[in-house]
Amino acid sequence: MTEQFRIFEADLTGTDQGNPYKDIWLKADFMNDSEKIEVNGFYCGNGNYKVRFMPAKPGKWTAVTRSNDPALDKMELVCDCMPAKEGNHGRVLLKSEIRPRSISSEEDNYHFSYEDGTRFQPFGTTCYAWINQPEAIQEQTLETLKNSCFNKVRMCIFPKFYTYNTVNPPCYAFEGNEEDGFDLSRFYPEFWDKLEKCISRLDELGIEADVILLHPYDKWGFSKMDRETDMFYLKYAVDRLCHFKNVWWSMANEFDLLPWKSVEDWELYARLVMRRDSYGHLRSIHNCVKLYDHTRPWITHVSIQRIDVYKTAEAVSEWRGIYHKPIVVDECAYEGNINFGWGNITGEELTRRFWEGCIRGGYLSHGEVYVQHEQIWWSHGGKLYGTCPERIAFLKEIMADTPEDVSPLKVTPDIQEANWDVPCLCKADKSYFLYYFGFFKPAFRTYELTEGYSYEIELIDTWNMTIRKLPGVYSGSIKIDMPEKQYMAIRMKKVIYE
Amino acid sequence: MTEQFRIFEADLTGTDQGNPYKDIWLKADFMNDSEKIEVNGFYCGNGNYKVRFMPAKPGKWTAVTRSNDPALDKMELVCDCMPAKEGNHGRVLLKSEIRPRSISSEEDNYHFSYEDGTRFQPFGTTCYAWINQPEAIQEQTLETLKNSCFNKVRMCIFPKFYTYNTVNPPCYAFEGNEEDGFDLSRFYPEFWDKLEKCISRLDELGIEADVILLHPYDKWGFSKMDRETDMFYLKYAVDRLCHFKNVWWSMANEFDLLPWKSVEDWELYARLVMRRDSYGHLRSIHNCVKLYDHTRPWITHVSIQRIDVYKTAEAVSEWRGIYHKPIVVDECAYEGNINFGWGNITGEELTRRFWEGCIRGGYLSHGEVYVQHEQIWWSHGGKLYGTCPERIAFLKEIMADTPEDVSPLKVTPDIQEANWDVPCLCKADKSYFLYYFGFFKPAFRTYELTEGYSYEIELIDTWNMTIRKLPGVYSGSIKIDMPEKQYMAIRMKKVIYE
Repeated sequence: MTEQFRIFEADLTGTDQGNPYKDIWLKADFMNDSEKIEVNGFYCGNGNYKVRFMPAKPGKWTAVTRSNDPALDKMELVCDCMPAKEGNHGRVLLKSEIRPRSISSEEDNYHFSYEDGTRFQPFGTTCYAWINQPEAIQEQTLETLKNSCFNKVRMCIFPKFYTYNTVNPPCYAFEGNEEDGFDLSRFYPEFWDKLEKCISRLDELGIEADVILLHPYDKWGFSKMDRETDMFYLKYAVDRLCHFKNVWWSMANEFDLLPWKSVEDWELYARLVMRRDSYGHLRSIHNCVKLYDHTRPWITHVSIQRIDVYKTAEAVSEWRGIYHKPIVVDECAYEGNINFGWGNITGEELTRRFWEGCIRGGYLSHGEVYVQHEQIWWSHGGKLYGTCPERIAFLKEIMADTPEDVSPLKVTPDIQEANWDVPCLCKADKSYFLYYFGFFKPAFRTYELTEGYSYEIELIDTWNMTIRKLPGVYSGSIKIDMPEKQYMAIRMKKVIYE
Repeated sequence: MTEQFRIFEADLTGTDQGNPYKDIWLKADFMNDSEKIEVNGFYCGNGNYKVRFMPAKPGKWTAVTRSNDPALDKMELVCDCMPAKEGNHGRVLLKSEIRPRSISSEEDNYHFSYEDGTRFQPFGTTCYAWINQPEAIQEQTLETLKNSCFNKVRMCIFPKFYTYNTVNPPCYAFEGNEEDGFDLSRFYPEFWDKLEKCISRLDELGIEADVILLHPYDKWGFSKMDRETDMFYLKYAVDRLCHFKNVWWSMANEFDLLPWKSVEDWELYARLVMRRDSYGHLRSIHNCVKLYDHTRPWITHVSIQRIDVYKTAEAVSEWRGIYHKPIVVDECAYEGNINFGWGNITGEELTRRFWEGCIRGGYLSHGEVYVQHEQIWWSHGGKLYGTCPERIAFLKEIMADTPEDVSPLKVTPDIQEANWDVPCLCKADKSYFLYYFGFFKPAFRTYELTEGYSYEIELIDTWNMTIRKLPGVYSGSIKIDMPEKQYMAIRMKKVIYE
């Protein structure tokens, strides 16, 4: 039995002659009473082929294979699918696609949802090259993730060559090695098995794998393959990986540092990914200093790197207005102590950016770069040493507690006096407000509460992770004493008298 | 004897019939061997008139008055002027006007100079309504200023009505009071005497008076006078005050909060100020959220309020590029604990903004709003309680130590890797570099020093106000260990071997 949203896999045997990676195609249409899903099988060496399928509905699915290899053609496959177990919510997709039209709102455009309707708020982190570290380090990474709040990991398929990343990995996506060269016409199945194990282990922890297909930090040549080879690789990657429910596609990390690839290339590659992916996983492309045109229809969400050194997560408001898609600030500098400004901000500042971006209706990803340790989280994984992770966990709880349909308060002229300086998440019916004060340190704050409404008010210290309920209920013109500290928030919930 | 750059004053007696403020004009042309300066005298009640003159050159100056009052006409005046004493450098003007063409540079456009050629780097503060406080508070303000590093004060002529500013002043620019109304056709000379005493006392301390002519925080009607009355008032203000060498004209504080005054009004008023001011003092106009067009020729320097809550002093670079004039960020939020975001940032953050702006080739003004004290510095003056002033004094010393012709490092592609994140002041001949790391906290920084040059390097802790010289001299590829703290700077000076 295959569990709903998990992978059915059939092993087939076919030809090992010539170059099956290039020569052989293998397809299957999985059908139940009402649906037909076409999947692409793939070669995995030694005459072995696999057909995978992720059933999105329980019940019996059947398929008959098609192939240009007679040994693989017309094979009957049966996938008996049982309902998802607890905690298995399927893919993460756009909330606007999942939520019934009857109750959907404009705000849904900016958010995600599991396909079973469960809310998904990404709180990601970054371990670019964790899959290419020794197994013991990988286990440490997984252990760290298990004890963290992070539910998405940005990770590359190709190894990373950059400061602190100079060791060759044990194997590569393609056959070969640095000394002898690579055979860019043949994949190396053991690498892909390892990669898939990593993705699978993340899935067991409830973590989305934000898979970066191409990136510029390279000495092996994988960033400079020609268009045909790129597409050969992308096809194989998608055919193998799309069956994992927790996969997101990032076409590139810092695409603009690959200037030899044109916009036409990226558009072509994106179409290929869309065409080969049987399940419509989320897709984006990540920038360094120059933004991709995130209005492109194939881009499901904006995976952005802050393009200003100073105005970072605050720009979420602006980006929402431009793109009308979920905004995920996948890099807005990391906590750490490296020489570069992208990796040496304080935990306070990164936590502030997280709050600022979330209150503005966006999402952020974490990263950590403490160079005194053997493994540096941002690339190798390993252990976390910073002050952010527990604060991000605290924020994640606060965000999970926000009502559905909460949205950033629009500053209109009549409320500008009170709110020009401070972002706020609220419900349109004024039953919920969450103000975040960032680097401001007021001794008090005044509010004119909605007439006829009473509120319970909590003072949240986002750095010290405390929530203090103020005594009594509040209505009318109020003044809230505050502790003259940075990083405070105020939460107001309307009291419902039964 | 009148000291150079100080005020010669002649008392004349004329008519007290009708309304001399409106009816009588009085002029004098002061001449020495080569120059002729026209000044406007003014009425000061009870048939008394004054003619003032600020000689910019020593020697004998003579004048004959002209007036439509025969009693004031054809009076011979003699001003014997002795050279300026030590510490008296005359007016502050644009460096580009003062510096001989032969040695001037593009960078001069962004800076100021005393008229005797002495460098002037403004480090201003804000005490909007200090002149309208009780005398004991004024004395306290002056004592505080005397012990501070501030060399410019933003101050209003009209009183301020706003939170924490609700007490009526003892007197006003015009005759009358709130209860009985004001006579907008008659000035109140005692007010002007008091104002002039304040300006004079600032001058004694070496402090520029950035005089705000109009502003919106009003309950008495001074912000809503008609155009004719505005001009009547401006004429009188300039006729009296322009003789003080330390006066700067700010046409308005937050002109955009006076929407009933049109751009045409401001342009007309500015022309009036230029025409009546015999000495060409500096002129600007200050915004709230909407910028004035600072490219206007009458504007000598940009007196700007940050228009973004997050990107503040960093915008100096952008504004320099647009305006090609000195950039003075006269408000970029204040240290304090008021409820509003303009007045509750930390001392660390305001100090950071000062550094950031100065390293980018601009200037800033300070303000402080601790609401628990009876006087709040930003408006009343009194005492300073914040953590910024001594740090700004430290910065002022560092800035005074920079060589002339230092300018912000332009980030070009070949040096971008090292400098995209951190602003730097440097000399074009690479003999001086001052890097400021702001909220970054690197554990080290690497540099490729200019071939053949050796440098002495100092590590500056801008918050703890320490300068630590690193042992030895540096050349080639270097790595500087840093303390993983925010608010650090690195200063490099080329070693000159004699």
